[in-house]
Amino acid sequence: MKPVCFVMGAGAGIGGTVGRKFAREGYHAVLCRRSDEAGLNALVDIIKDEGGDATGFLMNAVDENAIEDRVAFVEKEIGPIEVVIYNLGAQIGDRVLADTSMRAFEMGWRLATFGLFRLAKTVCPLMEERGGGKILVTSATAAVRGNAGQHSHAAAMGGRRMLCQTLNAEFAPKGIHVAHILVDGAVDAPDTLGKMLGPELFKKLRETKGAEDGLLQPEKMAETYFHIASQHRSVWTHELDLRSYSDVAWWNHV
Amino acid sequence: MKPVCFVMGAGAGIGGTVGRKFAREGYHAVLCRRSDEAGLNALVDIIKDEGGDATGFLMNAVDENAIEDRVAFVEKEIGPIEVVIYNLGAQIGDRVLADTSMRAFEMGWRLATFGLFRLAKTVCPLMEERGGGKILVTSATAAVRGNAGQHSHAAAMGGRRMLCQTLNAEFAPKGIHVAHILVDGAVDAPDTLGKMLGPELFKKLRETKGAEDGLLQPEKMAETYFHIASQHRSVWTHELDLRSYSDVAWWNHV
Amino acid sequence: MKPVCFVMGAGAGIGGTVGRKFAREGYHAVLCRRSDEAGLNALVDIIKDEGGDATGFLMNAVDENAIEDRVAFVEKEIGPIEVVIYNLGAQIGDRVLADTSMRAFEMGWRLATFGLFRLAKTVCPLMEERGGGKILVTSATAAVRGNAGQHSHAAAMGGRRMLCQTLNAEFAPKGIHVAHILVDGAVDAPDTLGKMLGPELFKKLRETKGAEDGLLQPEKMAETYFHIASQHRSVWTHELDLRSYSDVAWWNHV
Amino acid sequence: MKPVCFVMGAGAGIGGTVGRKFAREGYHAVLCRRSDEAGLNALVDIIKDEGGDATGFLMNAVDENAIEDRVAFVEKEIGPIEVVIYNLGAQIGDRVLADTSMRAFEMGWRLATFGLFRLAKTVCPLMEERGGGKILVTSATAAVRGNAGQHSHAAAMGGRRMLCQTLNAEFAPKGIHVAHILVDGAVDAPDTLGKMLGPELFKKLRETKGAEDGLLQPEKMAETYFHIASQHRSVWTHELDLRSYSDVAWWNHV
Repeated sequence: MKPVCFVMGAGAGIGGTVGRKFAREGYHAVLCRRSDEAGLNALVDIIKDEGGDATGFLMNAVDENAIEDRVAFVEKEIGPIEVVIYNLGAQIGDRVLADTSMRAFEMGWRLATFGLFRLAKTVCPLMEERGGGKILVTSATAAVRGNAGQHSHAAAMGGRRMLCQTLNAEFAPKGIHVAHILVDGAVDAPDTLGKMLGPELFKKLRETKGAEDGLLQPEKMAETYFHIASQHRSVWTHELDLRSYSDVAWWNHV
Repeated sequence: MKPVCFVMGAGAGIGGTVGRKFAREGYHAVLCRRSDEAGLNALVDIIKDEGGDATGFLMNAVDENAIEDRVAFVEKEIGPIEVVIYNLGAQIGDRVLADTSMRAFEMGWRLATFGLFRLAKTVCPLMEERGGGKILVTSATAAVRGNAGQHSHAAAMGGRRMLCQTLNAEFAPKGIHVAHILVDGAVDAPDTLGKMLGPELFKKLRETKGAEDGLLQPEKMAETYFHIASQHRSVWTHELDLRSYSDVAWWNHV
Repeated sequence: MKPVCFVMGAGAGIGGTVGRKFAREGYHAVLCRRSDEAGLNALVDIIKDEGGDATGFLMNAVDENAIEDRVAFVEKEIGPIEVVIYNLGAQIGDRVLADTSMRAFEMGWRLATFGLFRLAKTVCPLMEERGGGKILVTSATAAVRGNAGQHSHAAAMGGRRMLCQTLNAEFAPKGIHVAHILVDGAVDAPDTLGKMLGPELFKKLRETKGAEDGLLQPEKMAETYFHIASQHRSVWTHELDLRSYSDVAWWNHV
Repeated sequence: MKPVCFVMGAGAGIGGTVGRKFAREGYHAVLCRRSDEAGLNALVDIIKDEGGDATGFLMNAVDENAIEDRVAFVEKEIGPIEVVIYNLGAQIGDRVLADTSMRAFEMGWRLATFGLFRLAKTVCPLMEERGGGKILVTSATAAVRGNAGQHSHAAAMGGRRMLCQTLNAEFAPKGIHVAHILVDGAVDAPDTLGKMLGPELFKKLRETKGAEDGLLQPEKMAETYFHIASQHRSVWTHELDLRSYSDVAWWNHV
């Protein structure tokens, strides 16, 4: 029975691509996403065509027990979860405070912060019992600095980063590697950036900035995700950043 | 009509003491706290005995519309809110993940993060219309680093800090001064530290560490809160820390 | 005999203005700067006209023993140094690496980092013996993030910030308050900004941005410097930032 | 002609081990260290026995032109420097300010900060002309927080970190990948930790903490160094940390 790489937020960008990489490396990729069953099935098929194992689930992570039940099912029916890719985002674009509803603010927290807490509560005891595991968390610039219009996103991601540190403090000595991967730039991802921009603009961006490697490429990001998951326990990375060579780092102005 | 200093979390520690300081400086102190009506009334009486103006309200900030309605009432009946002291804490002591319930985690967020968001949504439009205001947020070490057992507290305070930055980015140019005051140490506060330790231990701590100024003294903290609220708009402080001279800074090991 | 406020870098901006503030508050202001004897004398006269005490010295801080001898002289002839304002800057404008000479890089370090080390070595034992003192260090955005063209400045200020933390860790428990004051924006200072821009541009900037309080005003900054020096030892601030309400914080892009 | 991996600080810990890793991956390892010719030759022999290419040089990096001349020689006689491993440390153990000489403080800066500046001035134009290169900088906890007794080390490493950011800001768009690798813990390295502790204590530490993977293992660190050097230009990491699973992160107290 293969170990499982459990991906939350397995769209056609970081999540799905990282899942596919782990499938190639011998994991059973369990791919969860909220919608687009066709896209999910297509990704499962691609992985199987490559000789890998994958199972897809539609899951709305904010539903009561959705995460908890899915983990239980996977552990029982598919295999032990050795790696978690927590890839749920909460970016809703820039909105001034007046346009940020209480509902949107709460939803950001439910997806980005509370979901990771629930996942950790569910999976850490299992990993601890087995002597270890890896939880790789995709993060964003908003986790380290708030910017205008990012009320919901920054509060949610800032809480998430601190949660990663508390999880690391409690669970690293028990063999669970928690890593906070700060994605500082636009990702070449049709399901997130593509939807935010619309097909026209996204196509243009790919042909200009993307053609010069100015967009983070998910398949290249996956190499680093896999490396982090493979680090020997004497040399674990807890935090790292990723950005295109041509992008300005978040702490610099142009 | 005096300008109002609106204190959320006005116990017998930082909140109440800062409110009293602002009352001495000419503000009407509006003191809100969840419980202990006797303590609240006693504080109001002390302020009045000193010749100041104060009004106390019991308020459970997580109740629907509690913040929103209280702000509306105060603006209508007492005066314009010029200064907010957001002093709601979410420290529940160290708890391993297994002992941190989903309810406790959510409550931390409702008090520390969501409450500030609701407050800001309510009060910022009023301040903006009047050309300015001040929102001073008491924060904790957990806002800048997660530690073992601090899952709820760190996630809540980390989100709060990022929210302070997003509020600053949007509202500083509109004359609203948001300050994040990181309290890095134990405060000589009967309502928080005193309750966590119990009367015996708290008395002993005061007689030892406290006698040497090793506990932050609320009346001295209030001097800095008032200074920050008094800064000229060409020289605003957004973040500062406060700790006793004899304490080890959070970034240092003993 | 009045306590001394010893200012290194006492030009007509932050340094001189802070010195003047301390003179008004009862200190003997000892003003040291590298050049412009006329400006120095004028400032001393202004302070004396206000009824304060001040003495000016020309000093090239990088000269061997210049700092050490000046401290010894002041302690012997003028009074005990209770407060130090370390205000030597090392900004040389943006220069690409190829245009940053080894000499310029070293000079930045000698002014911004090594000078503070030498000052601390000289004055801390005296302060410690007297039970305390204050060292307020003017810092810059370059202390917390490197930006293009800031090779010399950022390396020097980054080292300075870490030095402030090591000094704080050793000397706070001994009663010496070290504060790192991050000035995040353009200061309305003829001797620094004025010289970098030239008289025309500086005049124009003052009439536009400055007229709207978009430049940090030294006399307003001095209020905060004095407040920090006055904090009770149970509530010391080690780090704070200062910027105009209308400026974008360093961690935000426009 | 193989590309060169140029290692400054190639002792029997991180530097030498990372050099050996790059030699295995097809680079000519140029190993520079200040002393221990026998150790240097032994390492060169090991690499050659493995079928790799290596050349060793004794070099005192603080000597005038030592770095500049060595780079020129290597580029002319051995091959183009594609990767630099800047591994010069400046840890001298904890010393109170009174025991930290001006000479020691300056030496820390010369090794940790100025040496990297000189190296960058020498090698960046060559890399830029060739379209790219990698500069991997070993760093320490002292780069992000000053601690008691670390006056020299923290000032030097803090300056170094800011220098890495300025170099990144200028040269990343030109294809030069600068990475700051924060080593947050004790490394199983006979030439540094071994010498600081002495043979008895070091042996004991290896048998206790080391046996449980509580010391960072250089050959495992080398995997991450090589991964960082291999990242696609659309996904570069500028900062990451490395620590043993069983160690407390620098931002946590025990």
